[in-house]
Amino acid sequence: MTEFDDATQVDPTGSACIEPGWDIGGHANGGYLIALAARHLRAVAGRPDPITLTAHFLAPGTPGPVAIDGEVLKAGRRLVTVSGAVRRDGRPMMHLLGAFGDLADDPVAAGGGFEWHASGPPDLPPMDDCVLRAKRPGIPVPLLDRIDVRLRPADAGFATGQRSGVAEVAGYLAFDDGRPWDTLGLLFACDALPPAVFNIDMPEGWVPTVELTVHVRGVPRPGPLRCAFVTRHVSGGRFETDGEVWDSGGRLVALSRQMAMVPR
Amino acid sequence: MTEFDDATQVDPTGSACIEPGWDIGGHANGGYLIALAARHLRAVAGRPDPITLTAHFLAPGTPGPVAIDGEVLKAGRRLVTVSGAVRRDGRPMMHLLGAFGDLADDPVAAGGGFEWHASGPPDLPPMDDCVLRAKRPGIPVPLLDRIDVRLRPADAGFATGQRSGVAEVAGYLAFDDGRPWDTLGLLFACDALPPAVFNIDMPEGWVPTVELTVHVRGVPRPGPLRCAFVTRHVSGGRFETDGEVWDSGGRLVALSRQMAMVPR
Repeated sequence: MTEFDDATQVDPTGSACIEPGWDIGGHANGGYLIALAARHLRAVAGRPDPITLTAHFLAPGTPGPVAIDGEVLKAGRRLVTVSGAVRRDGRPMMHLLGAFGDLADDPVAAGGGFEWHASGPPDLPPMDDCVLRAKRPGIPVPLLDRIDVRLRPADAGFATGQRSGVAEVAGYLAFDDGRPWDTLGLLFACDALPPAVFNIDMPEGWVPTVELTVHVRGVPRPGPLRCAFVTRHVSGGRFETDGEVWDSGGRLVALSRQMAMVPR
Repeated sequence: MTEFDDATQVDPTGSACIEPGWDIGGHANGGYLIALAARHLRAVAGRPDPITLTAHFLAPGTPGPVAIDGEVLKAGRRLVTVSGAVRRDGRPMMHLLGAFGDLADDPVAAGGGFEWHASGPPDLPPMDDCVLRAKRPGIPVPLLDRIDVRLRPADAGFATGQRSGVAEVAGYLAFDDGRPWDTLGLLFACDALPPAVFNIDMPEGWVPTVELTVHVRGVPRPGPLRCAFVTRHVSGGRFETDGEVWDSGGRLVALSRQMAMVPR
């Protein structure tokens, strides 16, 4: 049993536990919470792969028991659409809406169809030339004990007070215990790197994510993911962060977009 | 009463009608359907502005009566989170999850806070130098009787068989009857231009949208919108289209992303 699989266990009735150690300063990582919910929702859907999944975060995810509900809204031939909720003591922590499918059973998803890309995987130097994201004094980030994050040197300066001035963060991502990536893991990967806005002079503080949507494009091959996150527009008190996740073979496996609030 | 307001009427119980004339080849435009649903959901939320709204399309929207349901999932201070469904004869046509707020009541949303942009509005020539999107023989597009779309000349060649080779489409957008833009109208605007993939050699055919998410950033000022839509990745039988909508004063008012299926 890997750490990630252990921490995303859900019993058939939807009872689960937000495990400690997947948090930033006491708040569970949003991608971890989505993966936890999706593990139940994919069982409800009867299809293994999240194809597009949207989550709204209504309350911080602190460690402890939760109840996950799921409902099939429509069972189509290729996609099963579901809604879901994660609650503690009856109070909503997260609501979800998504579609699940079976990528292994889909020859086009496996790479047989028309492909077109405006750009390729992020341009990363070899892993050993990237900057290992380490825990630092200040806000505790236990999450960093679970994953191996190696940032592109040009994006890593924020950690030492030298912001690049461009809201981008790219790097390699792997589980510390070597767990291979699958489509459930990709949901976590889309929220596992430090925020791209750390590289611009945005006011600091708690940055609550309102909504996160992940589109899964394929089943990742073994090896570290190559991830790139970019924020193009901070305005009206809000900003988006768009993610691209590519597998070790250079294939796009997920896109993500989240909307968060600028600290006041 | 404008055409758009007339076609998005919903009574307090959620009874509404998909009006003819907002379709492409008999299927109502997805943005129109979202606006119709959102008109009910904003009443349910008790807040006028969609801040982030995700819709899953489960069945084509043909003209006729529909029943719209909405439920408040959480009423927060700044945002009210709601779910919703559009059904005909009990069968789901669309499911939604979103958060509504009040932009007029939010000084930061009105433009008082930190702003940062990686890029500005799309670079468009003066309106008179753009290409008016006109109805052509073939698939009937009654929608084009409702709106005035003027495409950037570099993106308009697909209509005459000369694709640019880049999956981008940008242009000006206005209602034909002069209705001013508001945040409800922006939901429609995010799906009103021709698909960006028309400019690449993707297999032709019906392109069903699975999911569309709109983030509203501000209340648009009067005048035509400047819209830009881009598809960066077609893979695994699916593609995303990202939209940016800017108002006549050069302010970003909405971002959108949709996920659609490549024709087989």
